[in-house]
Amino acid sequence: MTQPASPSAPVRAPAPGAFLNPLLAAVAPSPVVEARRWIAGRVFAPERPLLNLSQAAPADPPPPELRAAIAEALDQPRAHVYGPVLGLPELREAVAERWSEDYAARISADEVAIAAGCNQAFCAAMATLAGPGDAAILPTPWYFNHRMWLEMSGVRVLPLPCGSDMLPDPEAAARLLEAEPRVRAIVLVTPNNPTGAECPPELVARFFDVARARGAALVLDETYRDFRAAEGPAHGLFARPDWREGLIHLYSFSKVFRLTGHRVGAMIAAPERLREAEKFLDTVAICPPAIGQIAALEGLRRLRAWTRGERAATLARRAALEEAAPRLAPGWEVLSAGAYFAWLRHPFAESSADLARRMVEEAAVLMLPGTMFHPEGDPAGRATLRMAFANADEDGVREALARLGRMGPPREGG
Amino acid sequence: MTQPASPSAPVRAPAPGAFLNPLLAAVAPSPVVEARRWIAGRVFAPERPLLNLSQAAPADPPPPELRAAIAEALDQPRAHVYGPVLGLPELREAVAERWSEDYAARISADEVAIAAGCNQAFCAAMATLAGPGDAAILPTPWYFNHRMWLEMSGVRVLPLPCGSDMLPDPEAAARLLEAEPRVRAIVLVTPNNPTGAECPPELVARFFDVARARGAALVLDETYRDFRAAEGPAHGLFARPDWREGLIHLYSFSKVFRLTGHRVGAMIAAPERLREAEKFLDTVAICPPAIGQIAALEGLRRLRAWTRGERAATLARRAALEEAAPRLAPGWEVLSAGAYFAWLRHPFAESSADLARRMVEEAAVLMLPGTMFHPEGDPAGRATLRMAFANADEDGVREALARLGRMGPPREGG
Repeated sequence: MTQPASPSAPVRAPAPGAFLNPLLAAVAPSPVVEARRWIAGRVFAPERPLLNLSQAAPADPPPPELRAAIAEALDQPRAHVYGPVLGLPELREAVAERWSEDYAARISADEVAIAAGCNQAFCAAMATLAGPGDAAILPTPWYFNHRMWLEMSGVRVLPLPCGSDMLPDPEAAARLLEAEPRVRAIVLVTPNNPTGAECPPELVARFFDVARARGAALVLDETYRDFRAAEGPAHGLFARPDWREGLIHLYSFSKVFRLTGHRVGAMIAAPERLREAEKFLDTVAICPPAIGQIAALEGLRRLRAWTRGERAATLARRAALEEAAPRLAPGWEVLSAGAYFAWLRHPFAESSADLARRMVEEAAVLMLPGTMFHPEGDPAGRATLRMAFANADEDGVREALARLGRMGPPREGG
Repeated sequence: MTQPASPSAPVRAPAPGAFLNPLLAAVAPSPVVEARRWIAGRVFAPERPLLNLSQAAPADPPPPELRAAIAEALDQPRAHVYGPVLGLPELREAVAERWSEDYAARISADEVAIAAGCNQAFCAAMATLAGPGDAAILPTPWYFNHRMWLEMSGVRVLPLPCGSDMLPDPEAAARLLEAEPRVRAIVLVTPNNPTGAECPPELVARFFDVARARGAALVLDETYRDFRAAEGPAHGLFARPDWREGLIHLYSFSKVFRLTGHRVGAMIAAPERLREAEKFLDTVAICPPAIGQIAALEGLRRLRAWTRGERAATLARRAALEEAAPRLAPGWEVLSAGAYFAWLRHPFAESSADLARRMVEEAAVLMLPGTMFHPEGDPAGRATLRMAFANADEDGVREALARLGRMGPPREGG
């Protein structure tokens, strides 16, 4: 932490800086922040602009009716003042209603909490479950912010490698639970970040039962639920009378309504658990941003047709990807694709960590390397890349694959 | 976590719910949430409406020019999309400039981070400093969210009782540091929440030196700096070449610009420490809300005269309080007052925890009891109350004191 003294300051020995928490210091920097540094200040040729497929972040603003609703709300004090820690009652009510319909269940508003984004909902959920020395199971590839939060909280991460279908195995999770008595949660992301794979309802139920049998929770992150390819409820857990005993569902309003900068997400859990989460959220956030909540409420109420349209557009991009995939250069493979993401295997001997930076230079394509989604040294991470294909249009998806196909192996000595 | 089964569900034995993290479960609920429950659903007589002096929360929306700036920004994508984890570069730059001027120092933009509120900035600051088993010194009365965060993070809280001038003693802090090798920070709030007391610059410097001598940091929360009564820089630390080695400054845009529902605050620290904080903030928040940042930037650029006016209005309320104080019923005493808060001693044998609820019933006044700002069982907490007088106008301040003065002791057996 020592800084060089300014030229006019008296010469003195550099003093040691204040302590750094080793738990946080040991956590690697955020992949998204890291990848932004790769392109910062770089100029791309106008005939080959950067294709940024790194972050699940719609680039366009929310639709006009949503912007109009926000503008109208600005005259009301409620757009500007503190609200309840767990969110605006109308929004909690609207989530309870829509989710009850979508999952053929009866969810009440006091089982819904709003947070400043789904990342924050995850942190709050895990804070209610696990403390230092406890453990949680994360299927690999994992969502890197999940790993970061657990590591900085002193919660041990137990990786659960996905099979060749990019789905995790509940029996392997059961064995981990048996071997490690302090596992407090299994975390599932479906549709998955980073692979796009969708867990079938039976598999979700199996994971819930495996967790429940050992007093652990199933933390089910359904951020990308609006973009599922499958029809019907994503799972039947909310219709079971025992869901409140071990299910924590997470959601984000950021993607479908294009509200990423507004920070608004949701958590559904037993009211007793939300009272615990309330202590965390009060301390970390006081309340979710008011305007984001007003926009999310408007979106739920009026953007149903829009939501269906966004899903259709995303499925069309995925179709473009699958259509173009067979024409990829030999050795490239789309291991899975769905919702927002595709998970690619590359043909080179170099690690994805090096390839991802080379892709910026040689192909003007930014994607995150598989190393960012796996434990250090895991060969599965070296061989893979995440493509946030929903950030591009169909032409962009084809163009990205074409650019990758033109890349050769790394130059020797390079 | 067990829920009663719905009437139509098959009768079955209540199953145990998933694990609750004991560290979080042991934390008492948020005082503000608790106090809201005291008045929820309650109807107050029209001739004696509730005087809510519980939370430092301006009730009015931001000034029209700020609302206009927000409305204008809504047409730009930057109001809706993810921004950098540490905040918009223009806002970091504007904070660096203004603070450099106010503290007669040279602070650069890469020493400034924006967070989703000052609470979040505090959590991030402490996450860089201390992990489970470490300790931090909090003067008492403390700001309850500080205590909550440290407790739920497994960081031990060492209380440092204020003297009769409501200021903490740096020599007592030095003794605590000597006795406890794992103290990573001294936390000072000035102007203080809950007492309103202002630390003179020399005292701030003394605390910095005491902390530095033991490798600990000084976390200096200046949320209420815009309402200081004293003229000139609040302290000279930023002008010292060694400030980066142990000072973390925190600020909130919520109070003076009336942006509480937008969630925007700031942290100033060495760039190396901000890189650590970035990992925490990325995981907990991804980025601060975009609109709040746009509003804060507009406020810094254009509301300088407004800021001075808000300070003058707050000082006038404090003058009204001090003028009315001698006419309080015998036994009441204003122990300190400044910025947003006054710290009162009450004359009754009952604990402030009981008195505060009785005040709602008998006087339609809501204030937080001293018990919420002290360790459990501390007699100083039983005898005191926090009054967020800046939430009322001058008449409201006088009326609140008059209502308190008319209260008698608790009824026997009541």
